[in-house]
Amino acid sequence: MKRFLDLADFTREEILDLLALAQSLQDVPQPRALAGRNLGLLFFNPSLRTLASFQAGMARLGGSSFVITPGQGTWQLETRLNAVMNGGAAEHIREAIPVLASYCDALGVRAFAEGRNLDLDLGESLFRTIDALCDKPLVNLESAVNHPCQALADWRTLDETGVPNRGKFVLSWVYHPRPLPLAVPAATLHMAAMRGMEVVVLRPPGFALPPAIMEKARRAAAAAGGTVTETDDRTAALAGAHVLYAKEWGTTTYYGDVEADSRLRAELGHWCVRERWFDGAAPDAKLMHCLPVRRNVAVADEVLDGPRAVVKREAFNRLVVQMAVLHRMLA
Amino acid sequence: MKRFLDLADFTREEILDLLALAQSLQDVPQPRALAGRNLGLLFFNPSLRTLASFQAGMARLGGSSFVITPGQGTWQLETRLNAVMNGGAAEHIREAIPVLASYCDALGVRAFAEGRNLDLDLGESLFRTIDALCDKPLVNLESAVNHPCQALADWRTLDETGVPNRGKFVLSWVYHPRPLPLAVPAATLHMAAMRGMEVVVLRPPGFALPPAIMEKARRAAAAAGGTVTETDDRTAALAGAHVLYAKEWGTTTYYGDVEADSRLRAELGHWCVRERWFDGAAPDAKLMHCLPVRRNVAVADEVLDGPRAVVKREAFNRLVVQMAVLHRMLA
Amino acid sequence: MKRFLDLADFTREEILDLLALAQSLQDVPQPRALAGRNLGLLFFNPSLRTLASFQAGMARLGGSSFVITPGQGTWQLETRLNAVMNGGAAEHIREAIPVLASYCDALGVRAFAEGRNLDLDLGESLFRTIDALCDKPLVNLESAVNHPCQALADWRTLDETGVPNRGKFVLSWVYHPRPLPLAVPAATLHMAAMRGMEVVVLRPPGFALPPAIMEKARRAAAAAGGTVTETDDRTAALAGAHVLYAKEWGTTTYYGDVEADSRLRAELGHWCVRERWFDGAAPDAKLMHCLPVRRNVAVADEVLDGPRAVVKREAFNRLVVQMAVLHRMLA
Repeated sequence: MKRFLDLADFTREEILDLLALAQSLQDVPQPRALAGRNLGLLFFNPSLRTLASFQAGMARLGGSSFVITPGQGTWQLETRLNAVMNGGAAEHIREAIPVLASYCDALGVRAFAEGRNLDLDLGESLFRTIDALCDKPLVNLESAVNHPCQALADWRTLDETGVPNRGKFVLSWVYHPRPLPLAVPAATLHMAAMRGMEVVVLRPPGFALPPAIMEKARRAAAAAGGTVTETDDRTAALAGAHVLYAKEWGTTTYYGDVEADSRLRAELGHWCVRERWFDGAAPDAKLMHCLPVRRNVAVADEVLDGPRAVVKREAFNRLVVQMAVLHRMLA
Repeated sequence: MKRFLDLADFTREEILDLLALAQSLQDVPQPRALAGRNLGLLFFNPSLRTLASFQAGMARLGGSSFVITPGQGTWQLETRLNAVMNGGAAEHIREAIPVLASYCDALGVRAFAEGRNLDLDLGESLFRTIDALCDKPLVNLESAVNHPCQALADWRTLDETGVPNRGKFVLSWVYHPRPLPLAVPAATLHMAAMRGMEVVVLRPPGFALPPAIMEKARRAAAAAGGTVTETDDRTAALAGAHVLYAKEWGTTTYYGDVEADSRLRAELGHWCVRERWFDGAAPDAKLMHCLPVRRNVAVADEVLDGPRAVVKREAFNRLVVQMAVLHRMLA
Repeated sequence: MKRFLDLADFTREEILDLLALAQSLQDVPQPRALAGRNLGLLFFNPSLRTLASFQAGMARLGGSSFVITPGQGTWQLETRLNAVMNGGAAEHIREAIPVLASYCDALGVRAFAEGRNLDLDLGESLFRTIDALCDKPLVNLESAVNHPCQALADWRTLDETGVPNRGKFVLSWVYHPRPLPLAVPAATLHMAAMRGMEVVVLRPPGFALPPAIMEKARRAAAAAGGTVTETDDRTAALAGAHVLYAKEWGTTTYYGDVEADSRLRAELGHWCVRERWFDGAAPDAKLMHCLPVRRNVAVADEVLDGPRAVVKREAFNRLVVQMAVLHRMLA
């Protein structure tokens, strides 16, 4: 495996193979599998889980890693092609990516959406550039509209917690003070569709996921025997749900317009998940979230501290599935 | 050992055992003892010695480590229970601590005193929360009123430099432009008491250590055959002293009141250790300090660059004793 | 080898031996050569290549490393002797350097020029202090007027790309919005002279390299059978050139005077390397640069993206030659 950029690049069987490898590495640790192998990690954006789990994962497999964080010990990097670099950025990714790739055996890069132009972000313009510049195995640590490591960890979490393959998976918009990127909603939507679930996207007006993301998920659902629908009716959405996957994202109607986004979300503070949201759900319905989660803003304490929440297991599964990805790439 | 939070949690014999293990690891290195073991390090506050010595110590025992620094590549973490998280912090420690713990075999956390409410800080309210959230071995890298790694390193330094168990140990307040926490004075006071020394706390008016800290030390001294007294008379305190342990801390009379603290310390610039302070001390009396030390503000060059100063040995002993702690926890 | 501070500290034969060791480690990896060895890395200034390549290099040889970055997770360090430390710096290098050295088997330090007093910078006053404080092997990761790791990597790059030992090497000043230090131009000039090349320093008025640097290079050239001259005539300089080494640096006529420097460079924006610069050069003349490079400010895209540019190979060679240095120091 040379690239881990998007679950959609793999067949359902390949994903199931990866999940089986993840389980196998849990059952029988391979502490020397990646001896002598080195992973470079480049973070254009902050991280907790990703940083810790990739460094720990490499170490658990006997390998090593280094971290480069532009703006934190490393200068800012320019990403625009043909830029006249007389501003704050001292180095272009056209040099930085190949150079870092030359130091390691695989490179992981986190580069959030720019959040200005929806088409550019949907097209993964930045990550495609990074992809083209990297001649080593490359892992997407979250790009403009994808987060395959999170999606794979979520898939494993659904399996572990006994959520049926044909179960009802509700991806719900929740409140956040600011617009967040579409990477996790897009990736988890695709994952649930690919798993063959009955997927419902629940979101208030102005926050519909872009047609390109919905269509891609519908195609995956069709292939796997599932469905993808969308609504702003919370009661209908959650009726019989096995999973409520809470996630914050910015307006897509006025993408990149922070003021319009702010006006839209001003009245949406009640989109904070509470226990009563589950009234019509399946009895043991789960609450999932990729973390970080703002308590009592996106999800209430009563839910996060109750038995429905499997958010910490999701986060642990980041480590587990990423070790499988690294093993497949480097062992 | 599942916790290393406070020397007071251990018997004197257990501490001596740890110190013996530390020596044994120096005499006969065990470069594979922690092979495959991973230490997570979470720094809410800056660090030089702690960061470097824990990473180096794990490596010397064949293990690995990762570092998470909220505000430096990782977002800010919320620590208040039941907070409505609509401010600067993106994640709560109720998620972050268990998640990080799930990635590693032991977790070290540095979380200084909040410095607002003395009772909360004395009660270690934050670290108790962290303790309850962590299901892996946990090391205190400095909490509100404790720093057991420093205290253990100091104990070893006393042993190495031939300071008698019954010797006179003077913990002296020294000047600093701002109020610093009570963690090191409290921890080293307890250590010297537990070692059975004649301990004197020398401090100007307004900077007495809180009764709870003094009482805890007196109990330890009583058990070990030593004493703990306090004074603001420098000449009396240093008469016959074997060790002057210099440390900066904030006013306890007006705890958390930065302006009152500033007024109190405005006249105390002469509390900078000079060679003449040792006029009545034992001939080879030592100067100890946990570092970082502000030269010519807390301690003069003439002392730090002279033969009394064992501050660099103290710092080296951080590595030595922490390797024993890690070995006891993880080998 | 206890010190790697300046290529001038070594004979030409010793450098050739290091380069041969570098090649040998590429041909036959030694993934356990530095097992159990730990490298401390102290960065007073930002880094991308140096940080990543030293961490990766230690890992590839089976060793480990830690990173300390004052101002990024570690407090600021004071460097002035006899300072009264009542300002922003919490710790002096007189403590920090020996303490960090005590934790590791070798220490690397990056400390750029202060850029105020040319004589102090030329005298390497700060790095000499660091040198005296460090009782472990020490690597210069870039000091006031030196960067031996870069120079050694450049030497290897010249060999690899078939540039003749007696070839013409043009070190050319190029534009940058701000004055940069003299470390790389001084180090690469010395390297090319030591290699025996026909070296020409091309720079606009006000940016001549200091006599001490030129004289040192001329002595190295004389010993190796090469020459060192300087000019502001670009056409003459580049006639028949085998290598154009582009580098930014600040005015030496008004060293440390940012306003004077700004006025001088205001008219020098055309010192951005373009393909036409090579009109009179050798047909396959190379473009070298230590990186980071500001595209279309210091060097145009058309050159960096063309076949002349060997800047990524230079950067990769940092890893290769540094592994030889570490091996020589620690194996």
